[in-house]
Amino acid sequence: MAYLNDNYLKLRAGYLFPEIARRVKAFCDANPDAAKRLIRCGIGDVTEPLPEAVRNAMHKAVDELGSRDTFRGYGPEQGYEFLRHAIAENDYRAHGLEVADDEIFVSDGSKCDCGNILDILGGENRIAVMDPVYPVYVDTNVMAGHTGEADASGAYGGLLYLPCTEANGFVADVPSERADVVYLCFPNNPTGSVATRAQLEAWVAYALKHQSLLLYDAAYEAYISEPGIPHSIYEIPGARECAIEFRSFSKNGGFTGTRCAFTVVPKTLMARTKSGESHALHPLWNRRMSTKFNGVSYVVQRGAESLYSSEGKVQVQALISHYMGNAAVLRKAAIDAGLAVWGGVNAPYLWVRTPKGISSWQMFDRMLSEANVVITPGSGFGSAGEGYFRISAFNSRAAVEEVAARLAKF
Amino acid sequence: MAYLNDNYLKLRAGYLFPEIARRVKAFCDANPDAAKRLIRCGIGDVTEPLPEAVRNAMHKAVDELGSRDTFRGYGPEQGYEFLRHAIAENDYRAHGLEVADDEIFVSDGSKCDCGNILDILGGENRIAVMDPVYPVYVDTNVMAGHTGEADASGAYGGLLYLPCTEANGFVADVPSERADVVYLCFPNNPTGSVATRAQLEAWVAYALKHQSLLLYDAAYEAYISEPGIPHSIYEIPGARECAIEFRSFSKNGGFTGTRCAFTVVPKTLMARTKSGESHALHPLWNRRMSTKFNGVSYVVQRGAESLYSSEGKVQVQALISHYMGNAAVLRKAAIDAGLAVWGGVNAPYLWVRTPKGISSWQMFDRMLSEANVVITPGSGFGSAGEGYFRISAFNSRAAVEEVAARLAKF
Repeated sequence: MAYLNDNYLKLRAGYLFPEIARRVKAFCDANPDAAKRLIRCGIGDVTEPLPEAVRNAMHKAVDELGSRDTFRGYGPEQGYEFLRHAIAENDYRAHGLEVADDEIFVSDGSKCDCGNILDILGGENRIAVMDPVYPVYVDTNVMAGHTGEADASGAYGGLLYLPCTEANGFVADVPSERADVVYLCFPNNPTGSVATRAQLEAWVAYALKHQSLLLYDAAYEAYISEPGIPHSIYEIPGARECAIEFRSFSKNGGFTGTRCAFTVVPKTLMARTKSGESHALHPLWNRRMSTKFNGVSYVVQRGAESLYSSEGKVQVQALISHYMGNAAVLRKAAIDAGLAVWGGVNAPYLWVRTPKGISSWQMFDRMLSEANVVITPGSGFGSAGEGYFRISAFNSRAAVEEVAARLAKF
Repeated sequence: MAYLNDNYLKLRAGYLFPEIARRVKAFCDANPDAAKRLIRCGIGDVTEPLPEAVRNAMHKAVDELGSRDTFRGYGPEQGYEFLRHAIAENDYRAHGLEVADDEIFVSDGSKCDCGNILDILGGENRIAVMDPVYPVYVDTNVMAGHTGEADASGAYGGLLYLPCTEANGFVADVPSERADVVYLCFPNNPTGSVATRAQLEAWVAYALKHQSLLLYDAAYEAYISEPGIPHSIYEIPGARECAIEFRSFSKNGGFTGTRCAFTVVPKTLMARTKSGESHALHPLWNRRMSTKFNGVSYVVQRGAESLYSSEGKVQVQALISHYMGNAAVLRKAAIDAGLAVWGGVNAPYLWVRTPKGISSWQMFDRMLSEANVVITPGSGFGSAGEGYFRISAFNSRAAVEEVAARLAKF
């Protein structure tokens, strides 16, 4: 009989969000009236319409496919030059950051890229993740055989967990131990924290010292509103020698259902073979994408390109302002309700301490049954998340104001 | 320094098509006049407009994303129910084949699926591929560490190569040895051969006997024109216990640039752990897709769904007829030119023997420089492909007739 990948059997029962969906469904089935009042502030999914610039660009692209002369078949696996150029120019070179067009790899999602990047890395790496952590970083390492079994708290053997706590403002300190690969996510999902320039400088210094690879997930970059907070890891000198950056159009352009993202792999980034030879990672990622991917839909890439047009930029800003306005409403309501709150300033997520003696999942169940609001239990992101919950600001203003009113009564 | 995946360094210099592109570019740069006459019958990429039904469905879907009430964010990672149902109903149940909606996993391409499927399989499997072979099957196994180094002929240690020759009509015989995983591709890329029912029955019997897993790539299924040739591996009793099937909208709906495909994983399909426990593969693939994928663009899935509408079916049939008409023209021209030809009857590819004493790449270079036609050298698909070349029928009728005229003179 064919062998399966045994590592999959190490995975804990459910990815966080299916478990939330299960509990919400059970509650709604049992309480049909309360179900009508339900407001979802759980999963970080956008709610507002796709920008007009994107829809216009996609309509135009669909029409192009209807004529032989403008039809597009297989595109470059790495993304069309028009989009790679728009990204490199607008997100990097316009800010004085050196990123070449061909260091941009267009993909169908940051979740995919964060998982797929392990394809080009060896099994020998010591991997560090934050705790709490976006579960995909951990689960994809489990699947790839880079961990042992999970313990009772859900932590996997072999991973180095770096606690994010109130004491460090939910930005993990640089550890004393060496890690070969470190996942960083700023603005952070789930805590909404951001790293200052000094904190990122410390991480880059760490990586250069240990010759570690930083996997920098900046999917929420567009939500940074305070001046001085770096938007890209490449703002830190030396990062081109130690960091891959992931970005997405999901949360700025409202692309969660449209699907487009990108990964930056600098040509100056090296890794080593088991025998100690050093090789650039750029050609490996290029080979991975050429062999196991066939590029993003032409229509979608034209949509993504339009986000960099003058109308597109204005429309993205309006979306960000809407969600960050929501975050401000939620933040005030949570603070007024006497809760301790982090995030929601440079990120669409609020990270809230549960009232004393109440666990994350107890809070989830109480918010669901008493306030009919879906939140995300902090413990779902790791044991250091116990005692917290995440509120997502992705919603209509009316729904968010209703959540604020319910929090006041809760 | 972070470790890279050493297996990538075993890969031979270039994927076939980049090497072709390099030679074509060099020729065109050196011969600008001949470049104007160039006709590409190399890569299997569609050329005709995207069907009107698809464009209408995509326009409608784009408009839906413009309104809050009909906006779609994250969809199910496995694909929308509307599309999974349309596929299972039309491609399987309408033909009397038992496939449930939730055994269909919608993806962004068969190439991706054929590579990604290895994520859920163990490293201990003995893998069999045909020779000549679609290079992705081999390269993804190399990347996953399932092979040794390549020898001088380009064959990788550890893989079981099953020769497809004139003697067996380019349908590999069932081997005497055991393989845990066997890649089958019918209609075949590159040879255009198809397997008869009896031949597929022999493969299913082999798989059931050895408890092997068949990876059945049916991306070109729509091109089968002769009666009695199975369109799906599930037409063979027992296949639900031993086979995963890959299908694509690339070559029937003209989706090479639009990107949509699907994989069928029967819930009855089992594999084993190293310690010998048997587990179903369906939940593993479901977990893989949930964790490392975020679903195909909503707009694209609506486009794919429209291929199953009554207009969509007519429009697909027109595309297939066009390309198969091309194949007939090319087939006649090659035969009239005195060449030995296979394929082109149930597949959009012709597999042609090079004139005596001429290698595949020599033929490629001569066709390029003398006829200004790009073909694919058979040896690029494996050592058993030496002495053959592939002609693709994906083109306009005018271009194909011109190729036929040049073949007559060649």
